[in-house]
Amino acid sequence: WFAGFLLLTFISTGVFATTTEKIPTEPDSTKKTDVLKPVDQIANLAWFKKLKINGYFQLRYNGAFQTSDELRIDQADKNIEGDPGFSFRRARVKISGFVTDKVYVYVQSDFAGSKVVLKDAYSDLYLNNDKTYRLRFGLSKVPYGFENMQSSSNRLALDRADPTNSAFNGERDMGVTFFWTPTIVKERFNRIKREGLKHSGDYGMFALAVINGQNTSDPDENKYKHIVSRLTYPFEFSNGQLVEVGIQGMIGKYTPFDSKIAEDVKVGENGEEQSWAGDYAFNDRRVGASFVMYPQPFGLQAEYNIGEGPEYDPESNTIKEKPLHGGYIQAMYRAETSHGVFFPFVKWQRYDGGKKFEQDARAYKVNDFDIGMEWQINKAIELVGMYSFMDRKYADSVDGSDEFAGSMLRMQLQFRF
Amino acid sequence: WFAGFLLLTFISTGVFATTTEKIPTEPDSTKKTDVLKPVDQIANLAWFKKLKINGYFQLRYNGAFQTSDELRIDQADKNIEGDPGFSFRRARVKISGFVTDKVYVYVQSDFAGSKVVLKDAYSDLYLNNDKTYRLRFGLSKVPYGFENMQSSSNRLALDRADPTNSAFNGERDMGVTFFWTPTIVKERFNRIKREGLKHSGDYGMFALAVINGQNTSDPDENKYKHIVSRLTYPFEFSNGQLVEVGIQGMIGKYTPFDSKIAEDVKVGENGEEQSWAGDYAFNDRRVGASFVMYPQPFGLQAEYNIGEGPEYDPESNTIKEKPLHGGYIQAMYRAETSHGVFFPFVKWQRYDGGKKFEQDARAYKVNDFDIGMEWQINKAIELVGMYSFMDRKYADSVDGSDEFAGSMLRMQLQFRF
Amino acid sequence: WFAGFLLLTFISTGVFATTTEKIPTEPDSTKKTDVLKPVDQIANLAWFKKLKINGYFQLRYNGAFQTSDELRIDQADKNIEGDPGFSFRRARVKISGFVTDKVYVYVQSDFAGSKVVLKDAYSDLYLNNDKTYRLRFGLSKVPYGFENMQSSSNRLALDRADPTNSAFNGERDMGVTFFWTPTIVKERFNRIKREGLKHSGDYGMFALAVINGQNTSDPDENKYKHIVSRLTYPFEFSNGQLVEVGIQGMIGKYTPFDSKIAEDVKVGENGEEQSWAGDYAFNDRRVGASFVMYPQPFGLQAEYNIGEGPEYDPESNTIKEKPLHGGYIQAMYRAETSHGVFFPFVKWQRYDGGKKFEQDARAYKVNDFDIGMEWQINKAIELVGMYSFMDRKYADSVDGSDEFAGSMLRMQLQFRF
Repeated sequence: WFAGFLLLTFISTGVFATTTEKIPTEPDSTKKTDVLKPVDQIANLAWFKKLKINGYFQLRYNGAFQTSDELRIDQADKNIEGDPGFSFRRARVKISGFVTDKVYVYVQSDFAGSKVVLKDAYSDLYLNNDKTYRLRFGLSKVPYGFENMQSSSNRLALDRADPTNSAFNGERDMGVTFFWTPTIVKERFNRIKREGLKHSGDYGMFALAVINGQNTSDPDENKYKHIVSRLTYPFEFSNGQLVEVGIQGMIGKYTPFDSKIAEDVKVGENGEEQSWAGDYAFNDRRVGASFVMYPQPFGLQAEYNIGEGPEYDPESNTIKEKPLHGGYIQAMYRAETSHGVFFPFVKWQRYDGGKKFEQDARAYKVNDFDIGMEWQINKAIELVGMYSFMDRKYADSVDGSDEFAGSMLRMQLQFRF
Repeated sequence: WFAGFLLLTFISTGVFATTTEKIPTEPDSTKKTDVLKPVDQIANLAWFKKLKINGYFQLRYNGAFQTSDELRIDQADKNIEGDPGFSFRRARVKISGFVTDKVYVYVQSDFAGSKVVLKDAYSDLYLNNDKTYRLRFGLSKVPYGFENMQSSSNRLALDRADPTNSAFNGERDMGVTFFWTPTIVKERFNRIKREGLKHSGDYGMFALAVINGQNTSDPDENKYKHIVSRLTYPFEFSNGQLVEVGIQGMIGKYTPFDSKIAEDVKVGENGEEQSWAGDYAFNDRRVGASFVMYPQPFGLQAEYNIGEGPEYDPESNTIKEKPLHGGYIQAMYRAETSHGVFFPFVKWQRYDGGKKFEQDARAYKVNDFDIGMEWQINKAIELVGMYSFMDRKYADSVDGSDEFAGSMLRMQLQFRF
Repeated sequence: WFAGFLLLTFISTGVFATTTEKIPTEPDSTKKTDVLKPVDQIANLAWFKKLKINGYFQLRYNGAFQTSDELRIDQADKNIEGDPGFSFRRARVKISGFVTDKVYVYVQSDFAGSKVVLKDAYSDLYLNNDKTYRLRFGLSKVPYGFENMQSSSNRLALDRADPTNSAFNGERDMGVTFFWTPTIVKERFNRIKREGLKHSGDYGMFALAVINGQNTSDPDENKYKHIVSRLTYPFEFSNGQLVEVGIQGMIGKYTPFDSKIAEDVKVGENGEEQSWAGDYAFNDRRVGASFVMYPQPFGLQAEYNIGEGPEYDPESNTIKEKPLHGGYIQAMYRAETSHGVFFPFVKWQRYDGGKKFEQDARAYKVNDFDIGMEWQINKAIELVGMYSFMDRKYADSVDGSDEFAGSMLRMQLQFRF
């Protein structure tokens, strides 16, 4: 109910802020309209001028020159397991736009899997005329990390890194988020985006979220909400160099899905044993730091986080609360040529910890290295080739404890519309 | 085949009516076009002027101040069961518009659940120039009751009342419907809608439907179609008061889904016992009355229906044909203020009967009371807070016979685009 | 990896072709734009002028005057099995358009079943200014046969014929396709389409595809890709008569889905026996010929193909590599009247072979005859009535070997938007 109370408080705040600017009430055709009311300028536009429909698709060919049949990265790309072939990793269609002067909506679905999934569905309520404060309600990205915020259509590497992406499944959850983006920061974000420097989009200079904390749009399995916060700042140097530095933290309790815990696995902390997961809410806490030097033309990007959460312990066949830590570093170069823009990059990641939303909160030790290049052929088409060297240990009660190491070439064609 | 014959007859009627007005045949570029033909005026518009895309989302926070863990209302909101948290109850996107002068299409999907569902997909064929007669083909709301017709985006209470909503799962089914809305009635409907008085939309002054009668878009489980009819009239008094009075009836046979009948449950009427549901088609009949005094500013709304249908009998562990009856009454008030429009309301419902589409045609005795308020902040955002007092007995063979009573606060933020 | 290599080669070819025409790189707001660059003319349009959203729905009433309860045609229409009633066979919504001067995107989903399915999602990259060469990347129809290419919204018969449609499930697969359509052929295709003569659309005069070859968008179950090619030519005679003649071939290996093979069924060729399907990749090859005399007003259409592929052998309870062959012939007449366009037709099909994507690669002997009429009431509405006489033998390990024969009347209302 605390979150509910917060919700009410937030909205009240928002509304008093907005109503002092005389946002009009439900229109009544029997009264004459005050044309000065700013909300009407947008609200009365034709639907196709308010809303925009666009999207992008990522067609992949995984598995070329594969050195091992065992390679798999469930979280990143389920199609890596199995025979080489064509597959869609993402097939996104979205509707977005301002529907009144201070209300923005965003709805994005993914058509790539065996069923269509809602990825985002939120409404932003702007609280002041400068649009520097806003409240977001609904399903959206959780403000934790830089790469998590960055759209997959802008990311260089084919997949997000495990250490920061394991914080929230699909980077998203349901709830309420407050964002503050001062005008100077908004202008820098816009410049970074406009110049094609692989930005994350505006998820606030400061963000504070109250979310279910379970799994994208799934209902919460316990009564505790997650609280997540992020602070990021883009420094601009006199030589034009842009460097963004951020910190983030999350705190909450996580109860693994019953369906993801094998019958005979015990659930408990410190030797304490319980047979039913529903009784048990694990501490789920992390702090992290992010550094991005935007590629003008050479760029660097690194993130690291540390915390604790549920993780499978193979020796005692128990899901326990365990520490986790990991990060990645990426170097990149932006080359504009007459044949398009080229982005060669290398990325190295390490992660040691559990993945709470996988089978038995599967334990991982990851040490992956990727080298690749993105080629922006034109505004609509991008091609990525990436060679991945993977060394991964994992453990759960179903597949047992295993390690695989190997390499493969992966290719992706992305088209936008 | 009777329904098929009806279909053919309806279409023939429609077409002879329309063709006498010289609806043009498939355009042939080798002939010059007669610009006077009215159909071309719409058919030749750009797609975005013919069609409109819009929708609404309902983000809920259920379970605040919950007095019992057992509270559940499957039909109304599956997320009430379980821990308090954020959830989408509805996430609707629709495409609609006239594609020729006399053909209107409407397609609505819901993205809220674990998979995307088609809610409506129909085409209206208008039979005369005044557009007072039309035939609807496809998946649409079944013309039974006022609250069932009213869009959830307009309803005050968070959920529809069980007594009338239990007639058809999701209020919708597949088939053919004839609507007649005389011009005077159409104008009154438009006025009610324009003034924001919580209208149901135009589902005809008179409506007659032939439908599968099974479950929204699921295939029929028996050869009998359902016939449903509704007559409603909006009276306008000299003081401007608007009162709508309606009656409706439905007749058909219902065969519960095999997947919804537990192995050991018997199916039969009057002691007669059969082990396989497919052999048995229950009578499924109801009549009901509706009364709506629109809120100018005080409003009243009440519906009641009585009938018979399949219902689980716990003593004999049998699904039997049993009587059912129930209704609701709602009082509301519309207050326009400088902070938006406020709609306080109270609603009381009782239902005694089965729900044919739930497990074993689950038996229910419902006595619920809701008190709440809707706040229309602006054209895009509405907030509802509702305190529900529930007292519900139910019985099926899986969960047994149980009663739960309790209360909870529920909140909803609705955004439209 | 061969397919991957092909992919790279294709794209490189495409890009060198395009880049010689100075397709601009990622736009950079710090440079002034060269307005002569053709790509910008489209890329800078508003989204609703680049993209178009449209679709069609097919509402059916199956089973009138049905002579047998056993009639079923899984591949054509799952709703034929079961009780007569209303159902959607197709509910298609698509987004398409040129997003730059040389890049076209097409995304189509189907909302008819219990879940929404992605049918098409591809990008066409045109390689020259005349737009006669293009590469298609993604999920699209496989260039095999005329009826397979023809949209269901244009086809006269309610379902595609088994002999050619059994080549690929849903006519679609994932991969890369090269199309060549010389200008003269493009003009003829356009004329055929414009005059409403039931065209297939432009799938190239010549087409060559490299695809997974498994099942629409499912991942491949073996490392072998399918290669498919088609050559078709529309001859125009001095009297205006249009005749299109085509040939097509496919070659690949097919591994049935484990989930579609019953536990006790053996998988192997020539007596060799293996218990696990994954070990076995069957040869999957066909060649076929197509003939279409377009209906001006009398038309004829015939296709035939022969090949080999997996098929259940009931005697040895084994899936074996077996020969297959079959075809259909259809006669039609196009009558323009003041009440719309009428298309009476008759169609006869025979097929003897397996269906690789059904249970145990089910064996079939099909001998079906359809007589019907399509009535194009206006641009938005079409009505089809079709009487089907079916005589079908099939065999798999679950339903055993069976034969059913019978007839039924089926009706379809199609609306476009």
